[in-house]
Amino acid sequence: MGEFDLIERYFKRPARQAVLGVGDDCALLQPAPGTQLAISCDMLVEGRHFLSTVDPLRLGHKALAVNLSDLAACGAKPLAFTLALALPRAEESWAAPFAQGLFALADAHGCELIGGDTTRGPLNICITVFGEVPVLAGRSQALLRSGAQAGDELYVSGNLGDARLALEVFRGTLSVPAPVFEAARLRMEMPTPRVALGLALRGIATAAIDVSDGLLGDLGHILKQSGIGATVNADICATLVAARAGCAPEPGQPGAEIGPDQWRSLALAGGDDYELLFTAPASQREAVAAAARNSQTPVTRIGQIDQQLGLRLINGKGQTLPNNYTSFDHFV
Amino acid sequence: MGEFDLIERYFKRPARQAVLGVGDDCALLQPAPGTQLAISCDMLVEGRHFLSTVDPLRLGHKALAVNLSDLAACGAKPLAFTLALALPRAEESWAAPFAQGLFALADAHGCELIGGDTTRGPLNICITVFGEVPVLAGRSQALLRSGAQAGDELYVSGNLGDARLALEVFRGTLSVPAPVFEAARLRMEMPTPRVALGLALRGIATAAIDVSDGLLGDLGHILKQSGIGATVNADICATLVAARAGCAPEPGQPGAEIGPDQWRSLALAGGDDYELLFTAPASQREAVAAAARNSQTPVTRIGQIDQQLGLRLINGKGQTLPNNYTSFDHFV
Repeated sequence: MGEFDLIERYFKRPARQAVLGVGDDCALLQPAPGTQLAISCDMLVEGRHFLSTVDPLRLGHKALAVNLSDLAACGAKPLAFTLALALPRAEESWAAPFAQGLFALADAHGCELIGGDTTRGPLNICITVFGEVPVLAGRSQALLRSGAQAGDELYVSGNLGDARLALEVFRGTLSVPAPVFEAARLRMEMPTPRVALGLALRGIATAAIDVSDGLLGDLGHILKQSGIGATVNADICATLVAARAGCAPEPGQPGAEIGPDQWRSLALAGGDDYELLFTAPASQREAVAAAARNSQTPVTRIGQIDQQLGLRLINGKGQTLPNNYTSFDHFV
Repeated sequence: MGEFDLIERYFKRPARQAVLGVGDDCALLQPAPGTQLAISCDMLVEGRHFLSTVDPLRLGHKALAVNLSDLAACGAKPLAFTLALALPRAEESWAAPFAQGLFALADAHGCELIGGDTTRGPLNICITVFGEVPVLAGRSQALLRSGAQAGDELYVSGNLGDARLALEVFRGTLSVPAPVFEAARLRMEMPTPRVALGLALRGIATAAIDVSDGLLGDLGHILKQSGIGATVNADICATLVAARAGCAPEPGQPGAEIGPDQWRSLALAGGDDYELLFTAPASQREAVAAAARNSQTPVTRIGQIDQQLGLRLINGKGQTLPNNYTSFDHFV
């Protein structure tokens, strides 16, 4: 099967929202009047962003999910995406389930494939995604990293650390009961982009980012770009590792060797969570709760924004903790 | 040097046209009222689209040039692009000249980098480019592959086959004089996107495509999508290989072993030309000539569009030639 057959068979579908989709030199997109286009791009490499043994269906899901997560962090409504694929071979047994996982998530968000490229090479998946953000009275409604203010409260959606836990089990550095591993593995391989929450937070959140490199590292981007500091309750974060509930605390049982500091580490610096980390004024506490309810997305308050620069970690008793948690850098 | 340092140092520049550029979860782009966004995406893989020994400066140029070429084929004005990079190592000695070549071409076309991704992995460069196409009286002014009509004339810009010639010299299958090789190599490593010609052809050309996989293969896309056929003068095409003039016809001299059929083959199926192949009504012959003059881009009439389906090749005397020329497919 050649390049054009592969595109024709698995990746060409009629355009619905776009003016022109797959099959010409360019796709054509016409944003609605009074909107801006939010654009993000993520590249996934075998052995770094996914294991070579991953189910191609899950990989198709994840490749788009991590991009939709960026739209969510901007409060943008998904519209369309391009897909560039480097494949070692043009294998139908890979392309068919990959396309299935990709389009299932795309259809769930009304996000259509409008173009791309396929070539032979070491497995590499690059998606660029397009979303829509309204402009009201000349002001963009996009959620940025730069809007956090002293006095704001700090929230995170869903769970933290489970994807990293699964990775560590694969690496053999941690051991947990089989059902706990399977659930954590699903979080690693099929993350849920928090699109509905991102949309619901427009006009409420002052800053937002998606947690991809680890909570503290990504929080650092908000702090730097907003020119403020924060205090984070590490023990509240540690309760957000879903796997924790399923790990027996008894000595000799799998999971027992994971101590309180490791749970904190998974939550604070795990990475690959694709949750939304955001700030909102204390006066918006009710509005944040309503956004969480309406988007059916759990949200937890984990700290606050301070005038004082830098990041302070506290435990459940309010005592200061040293910050030994480092974020994930692809070249370190 | 880590991922964020690399981005900060070489790839972060203030946004000029975009509402928001590099540095948040998404970039924000606001197309002008009455325009559509043309979007294209190309992925370059080491060993397939470029040799591992290529000068990073030239590679930076080429990675963007092949994308701008797609905008040119749609008659779109370049606006912005995203860049995703997988690199084996975060090396300044590579990133600095790569960024230099990339931005020199970007600046020449007023096309700004608004976002992207860097990761570690086998060298892979994926660019998604955004251009603007006006909509007049409800009609998109984009040049498509599907608009060619019987009676139209067929044109190609610039030169053909030189990039492939350089590749074959690298492979050791052809030999040419050193200055001829250097010129051909420049065509292979630093192709010229025909942006000005694409813009000048709006409202004149009925269909267009950029020649990346080989002239006949790319012409096939126009024929299929327009539902028509064509006759191409192979000998006129063969005169468009710039290297030909510098190759001595004397036996025993380098280049002498390249026969008439090989020149045709280089021109018709060479690939990597990034010239514009387009159709226009015979009544627009003067307008095509003016577009070529105004964009300072040579254009040659190489054939015509027929009602009869299929592709017919003729030689300089009008005699039918067999079509043994195949196009480049990344998986064949």
